Amino acid sequence: MSQPTVVEYAVNRLSKLGITDCFGLPGDYAFPINDAIASNESIEWRGCSNELNASYAADGYARIRGVSMLNTTYAVGELSALCGVMGAKAERSTIFHLVGMSSMRHQQLRKHVHHTFGDGVFQNFINISAQSACVHAILTPDNCVYEMERVIAAALANRQPAYIVVAEDLATRPITGPALEPFPEPKSDAGELKAALDAALNKIEAANTGCILPAFTVSRFGLQAEVTALIEASGLPFATTAMDKAALSEGHPNYIGGYAGKFSPPNVFEAVEGCDVVINAGGVLFTDISTAAFADNIDPAKMITIGIDYTQVDGRIYSNVRMRDMFVQLAAKVKKFTDVKLQRPAPAELVGGPDDPITQESLVGRYQRFLKPNDILVAETGTSAVATGGLLMPENAVYHNQTLWGSIGWATGTALGTAVADRSRRTVLITGEGSHQLTANEIGNYGRHGVKPVIFVLNNSGYGVERVLEEYPDWVYNDLAPWDYHTLPAALGCKDWFTAKVKTNAELEAAMQKAEAADTASYIEMVGQKHDYPAGLKLMGSRQYEFYGI
Amino acid sequence: MSQPTVVEYAVNRLSKLGITDCFGLPGDYAFPINDAIASNESIEWRGCSNELNASYAADGYARIRGVSMLNTTYAVGELSALCGVMGAKAERSTIFHLVGMSSMRHQQLRKHVHHTFGDGVFQNFINISAQSACVHAILTPDNCVYEMERVIAAALANRQPAYIVVAEDLATRPITGPALEPFPEPKSDAGELKAALDAALNKIEAANTGCILPAFTVSRFGLQAEVTALIEASGLPFATTAMDKAALSEGHPNYIGGYAGKFSPPNVFEAVEGCDVVINAGGVLFTDISTAAFADNIDPAKMITIGIDYTQVDGRIYSNVRMRDMFVQLAAKVKKFTDVKLQRPAPAELVGGPDDPITQESLVGRYQRFLKPNDILVAETGTSAVATGGLLMPENAVYHNQTLWGSIGWATGTALGTAVADRSRRTVLITGEGSHQLTANEIGNYGRHGVKPVIFVLNNSGYGVERVLEEYPDWVYNDLAPWDYHTLPAALGCKDWFTAKVKTNAELEAAMQKAEAADTASYIEMVGQKHDYPAGLKLMGSRQYEFYGI
Repeated sequence: MSQPTVVEYAVNRLSKLGITDCFGLPGDYAFPINDAIASNESIEWRGCSNELNASYAADGYARIRGVSMLNTTYAVGELSALCGVMGAKAERSTIFHLVGMSSMRHQQLRKHVHHTFGDGVFQNFINISAQSACVHAILTPDNCVYEMERVIAAALANRQPAYIVVAEDLATRPITGPALEPFPEPKSDAGELKAALDAALNKIEAANTGCILPAFTVSRFGLQAEVTALIEASGLPFATTAMDKAALSEGHPNYIGGYAGKFSPPNVFEAVEGCDVVINAGGVLFTDISTAAFADNIDPAKMITIGIDYTQVDGRIYSNVRMRDMFVQLAAKVKKFTDVKLQRPAPAELVGGPDDPITQESLVGRYQRFLKPNDILVAETGTSAVATGGLLMPENAVYHNQTLWGSIGWATGTALGTAVADRSRRTVLITGEGSHQLTANEIGNYGRHGVKPVIFVLNNSGYGVERVLEEYPDWVYNDLAPWDYHTLPAALGCKDWFTAKVKTNAELEAAMQKAEAADTASYIEMVGQKHDYPAGLKLMGSRQYEFYGI
Repeated sequence: MSQPTVVEYAVNRLSKLGITDCFGLPGDYAFPINDAIASNESIEWRGCSNELNASYAADGYARIRGVSMLNTTYAVGELSALCGVMGAKAERSTIFHLVGMSSMRHQQLRKHVHHTFGDGVFQNFINISAQSACVHAILTPDNCVYEMERVIAAALANRQPAYIVVAEDLATRPITGPALEPFPEPKSDAGELKAALDAALNKIEAANTGCILPAFTVSRFGLQAEVTALIEASGLPFATTAMDKAALSEGHPNYIGGYAGKFSPPNVFEAVEGCDVVINAGGVLFTDISTAAFADNIDPAKMITIGIDYTQVDGRIYSNVRMRDMFVQLAAKVKKFTDVKLQRPAPAELVGGPDDPITQESLVGRYQRFLKPNDILVAETGTSAVATGGLLMPENAVYHNQTLWGSIGWATGTALGTAVADRSRRTVLITGEGSHQLTANEIGNYGRHGVKPVIFVLNNSGYGVERVLEEYPDWVYNDLAPWDYHTLPAALGCKDWFTAKVKTNAELEAAMQKAEAADTASYIEMVGQKHDYPAGLKLMGSRQYEFYGI
């Protein structure tokens, strides 16, 4: 049997991780990679409208499947994808980014070719793309086998992107050397693990009350069962910040609600800030957005932080301790708390009459009623995140938002990826027009790739989240081109979709019923009010922090 | 009178260069810059759908006006614009890229905020954006005045982007120190200039025949008059490569046509490769695309290369010699050639009958007939560039294509910039669907900003240029979502445009007449054939070079 080529090997190796789809755009330097993907029986090509959209789709796919594949071409393609891949690094989404570059013979001859500065200099963008990854490799026939194992091991250990680049002439050469076993997963240092565990158990033992804050990393590393076991063994309640929302199913009886410091529901505030020990399960990031502008105030002395590869107790860092080991061993040894109040959060209520115009407030209860178990909700940054942040997610429904990186346009690209990643679940995309306009040219590919999301777009005459953050909301730069949103799917080739444009709550409810019943994708344009903002949004945004003197 | 703030000063200083429009997207860290632009009476905010599109628009504006302004926000905005700004660097387009970042108080406190990795680390993307510029500055109240002069001087000396970043709290503080005079333009070294001039004149004196190849830089540096004077003083013919097309008006009697090595028209081939001396006026880049896959073969011994800041004669580099000085002094002293054949290129001919379907070949003559003096033609990479490369541009019409960087989607963004830059001229955008899909979400902003281009989009069932470069043209990755292109302007808010979908040559001609007569923008979807490729395209593209063993 002949040896596979470099790209055949690389693509096939990635498919073994469970990747069955590759997002991207073709390009001449990338043709060998494009060919290898198109030829691979386990992988479907998922063409996107541009590379940024493709990177967002790959992010969404990785959030559902654990891993994803993105393919772009040298310089123009990879740099266009950069913001999306960098966001995946920030929020720990495992994208394998394959890039094709000029042939090594052109590079050796310093040919002046397209997608360069025309100066015979190559590989001068590798340093850029590599910054969006936790590991990178330049593949050759000789290094291909072990470099693939190395990048896969590192990407999975960190749940961050890997950048893999290959010259077009070397791409199609046979690999040398035999296959390797996968590199081992990182292991905890036994002594540090034991010390961390003892310290954590002692702290928990001394506590009368406690609370668990599961982080987004629990979902990214697929450790939901382990953390759920810890919750059930301890009997402790859990709450989540905006960034961590639904990292564990909100249908669990121990879920008490969202934590946002002093703006939390009273029982959550008391459970988190008033308890004796807080188990930070996975390394919650207390950022401006996840804490409603630093409204959090948890005494560090009572926090046990179990990070991806370290644990911190009483100020001491225990290094090289993997969080999975901590979760499993804590669950096995933790005491069962007895003085536990488990007050479940209430679903959002319906407000606004049937004939009233749609408002930020009236949307929330209707989203709540629309959601069902196992849904994948993808919420955009801005007013969409605020409107959805307070929803109680049904059993096993997941919630995705780019809370930290916060690149607007992300959700419209990402929801393509989540929908392709799991066709047995419904993807619900909730976005506002300001964000949607960045990436709405992706809509045609939802149809092309045969997925059936329900898409809600709020048409509120501009960038709503920016108006609210401004002292003067009507700056010209908050205006937008007046798109006729509900006609967009048809213009982009999705002729059979259910589409609607709704202005009142009753119209919205009727459209939701049709979307629920439709056997196609749905696209609902919701006409909102220009100066209607979600309650609480005034607390967010950098300009406001300045007022707080932070 | 109170001192202006940092951003007021910076924006006002840039407006003094003749910039009256700023492309971009707002964002909270950039609000102070957004405000300063929106408040400046000399500058109009030109909101775009996303940052990549905005960077392309700024590129187009700079190609027409000489300079342009782009405004994005920290990390997510600037990284999304990166490919476009990098392309402006490659092709020498002078974009001033203003970026707003987190307040210095947040940076000093290592706050965990959005648009970062949530780790308290800031300024870690400055190294990336700076690579897309020839100069960059981090503004403070103290350095603002001289840093602005420094970046302006460097950007104008190189005609490449400048990257200017400012923290949101410092942005609104008053500048310190008095205004400065603009920094001086770079001056030639007198001795080197004289030596270069003598060497060039000697070489020209010894020649019986000669030819001039004006480079794209002649247009970027605004030296058309100086090079035209040299052409007229010498009486020499001039030709241009694809990248340099219409850098000087093709209406000039000494223009003999396009040069593409052995694929040139016979008289151009003879004039360039058969003459005694070739004056490379501005530093023509002999790249894969501009030479039809390295089909050029000009004896280096007979080339005088007048680069931006050096001249090369007989292998010797004369350093620090500015091209303007060389053009002016050569024009003053050059001999008048007598043995000159000036065969004007013929306009492209009409082929294809009225009822025949539109083909790559039938388009060319119809584009030719449609163009008029002073038009700004923006042609996309791919089949569009090939179809338009052979057009004879009317008097003072200009031609723009991203020949070197070659990022598909560029033209649809760029044409917004050229149209805004000069409303007295008609912008004609010629693109293919594969490229158009990357950036077509910008169309709504053409209407919003009130420009009236004529847009031709070839719907040929996929990436035509990629099919032709492939051994197997029907790879799945060359397919696209089936957009209903001619309905797109209305969906994006351009309700009053003239739109048409045409399949035959007669339908195309009728649509062209209506577009010519319309008082609105026009958008013409042209249905082409999936496997119909422009003649000559087989010569381009990396895979083909491999066949040539290059």
